[in-house]
Amino acid sequence: MHITQHTDYGLRVLIYLGTNTDRLVTIREVSECFGVSNSHLMKVVNQLIREKFVEGVRGKGGGLRLGCAAAAISVGDVVRRLERDMTLVECFGEGCNCLLDPTCKLKSTLANALQAFQSVLDQVTLADLLVVPETKVLRRFP
Amino acid sequence: MHITQHTDYGLRVLIYLGTNTDRLVTIREVSECFGVSNSHLMKVVNQLIREKFVEGVRGKGGGLRLGCAAAAISVGDVVRRLERDMTLVECFGEGCNCLLDPTCKLKSTLANALQAFQSVLDQVTLADLLVVPETKVLRRFP
Repeated sequence: MHITQHTDYGLRVLIYLGTNTDRLVTIREVSECFGVSNSHLMKVVNQLIREKFVEGVRGKGGGLRLGCAAAAISVGDVVRRLERDMTLVECFGEGCNCLLDPTCKLKSTLANALQAFQSVLDQVTLADLLVVPETKVLRRFP
Repeated sequence: MHITQHTDYGLRVLIYLGTNTDRLVTIREVSECFGVSNSHLMKVVNQLIREKFVEGVRGKGGGLRLGCAAAAISVGDVVRRLERDMTLVECFGEGCNCLLDPTCKLKSTLANALQAFQSVLDQVTLADLLVVPETKVLRRFP
């Protein structure tokens, strides 16, 4: 079971921005920190901007910053919006012709488990992810 | 977010066998019911046999049946054993060099969510998935 890399990086971009709120951050800086390509990260960042989690400042000296306070960003909300496909198993999707359906309770059981998963994330904000020991400070990349 | 098709079919095979306890079931019958290839299903069934969830009876007239009572098969246990990779995000894996680590609380937050997901499944047995209205009986395939 995986969360997509898209969502994984989305969360990590938010953590990075939340740890560097005193300045604008460039995509290049984040991509070097995570060791992923600019273009890959661009797609993630574009969605974060569309979803208002991130604000992009254009022009020279521009960059990225959080679109709102870290405490106002629900991790559950981020996962729900970035993880485009939550069809945990085939029969969650439309047009499923499984002959076990509709007597089978697998779908509702897995839906309950997924709800429990989301509930934990809904109780956590980006601010909760940023509580770092004072001695630990994220390296700034040039 | 997905559960692998391997686990999905594993659960469905168990449901099928649990709904047909009065006889031995062939892989061909299950593969026709689910519309998947014999060879694909064979891998799933082989693991179910290795894990003692299913018993295979060899020879002419042989087939498959549950390896123990449906009430003794935990859905959480099945998912845990069949879903080989529960590294929800990259940093769950070994050798992760993410620079956010070890200050980042994302990993522990997602681990808590995954634990909540598993806890729901641990409370459900295969027998719970089989409670069907009496008027609904799974079709038997030739």
